[in-house]
Amino acid sequence: VASDTRDRLVRTTSRLLRKQGYGATGLNQVMAEAQAPKGSMYFHFPGGKEQLAAAAVDHFADRVMRRLDRGFEEADSVAEAVATFFHEYIEHFRRTDFAEGCAVATVALDAAAAHEALADATGRALRGWIDRFAEALEAEGRSPAEAHRLATLIVAVIEGTVVLGKGERSTEPFVAVSAVLRDLLTPADALAPAN
Amino acid sequence: VASDTRDRLVRTTSRLLRKQGYGATGLNQVMAEAQAPKGSMYFHFPGGKEQLAAAAVDHFADRVMRRLDRGFEEADSVAEAVATFFHEYIEHFRRTDFAEGCAVATVALDAAAAHEALADATGRALRGWIDRFAEALEAEGRSPAEAHRLATLIVAVIEGTVVLGKGERSTEPFVAVSAVLRDLLTPADALAPAN
Repeated sequence: VASDTRDRLVRTTSRLLRKQGYGATGLNQVMAEAQAPKGSMYFHFPGGKEQLAAAAVDHFADRVMRRLDRGFEEADSVAEAVATFFHEYIEHFRRTDFAEGCAVATVALDAAAAHEALADATGRALRGWIDRFAEALEAEGRSPAEAHRLATLIVAVIEGTVVLGKGERSTEPFVAVSAVLRDLLTPADALAPAN
Repeated sequence: VASDTRDRLVRTTSRLLRKQGYGATGLNQVMAEAQAPKGSMYFHFPGGKEQLAAAAVDHFADRVMRRLDRGFEEADSVAEAVATFFHEYIEHFRRTDFAEGCAVATVALDAAAAHEALADATGRALRGWIDRFAEALEAEGRSPAEAHRLATLIVAVIEGTVVLGKGERSTEPFVAVSAVLRDLLTPADALAPAN
């Protein structure tokens, strides 16, 4: 079905962006890896690579958002949800031999400055994640301003640790950073002796 | 002179990596923008794009390291040095209309997984910066283990905030993150009332 093809094109693009960035990801490779019929690319994405990549960023952002929602549901605190998220990223890096990073980060660094539609997509993704973390932090009693600042830091740390993990081909940065974040995110009253 | 040409090739590549990433940066564009004579590319870089990009990452890493050294020399604390570094990045983003990010980050995300020499270069750069921050944090009395963890977080935050700044085309993430980092890096005794 046509919509299956569109979905395969988007998912394949998202995976390639995570592996090799925007510049290296060409339409021919996407079509081949998605096993998409000839003509389907410009049928679904008349705007070409820019439109396809924007859809892939939106797709990836939604996937991460669902994982965040699940994480907040299962964890007792933002600190615990973030720790679990880092743990899952370590596992993912091990599974993919450090190949798959963040589709939003590569598009933001490589292409957002030159392509308005891609800056819109990466901005939407990043602000969405930050707002989701901020919402969870507010639910723990932080003020809106403090929650926003901390949420921005959390998303920056996640993106930056992916850079470190890929750049060092190591999961050690995730372990180091995760320990600092846990202390930072544990509300002071949770550290007080219970009685 | 030959070494001037090599230097121009390296500096041009570093700038293009910051703007558009590894995949989009082709040898022809580098040669044209560096105004390099025909044949000079393979004379200086017989290993082609991979070798050139590794040299550009080393060059960029050294430049950042010199800026860090200067920052630590001029500032009274790591917290102040980091704040100044963020402030300079905001100015740089404004000047370049969010075009120029970090040459190490784009190579780490786009190409380190597939190219051994590039993973070596990005790993060297990132570990060098982390060690430099850790050294400064130890000089403020942190234990080696704590200094390493905090230094890893600082470098992750810098890399991640560049992703946010470019992805949102905004300097606001730098301001938000900088406030959290300042609190985190100010030693507890510096916060105590002076008397």
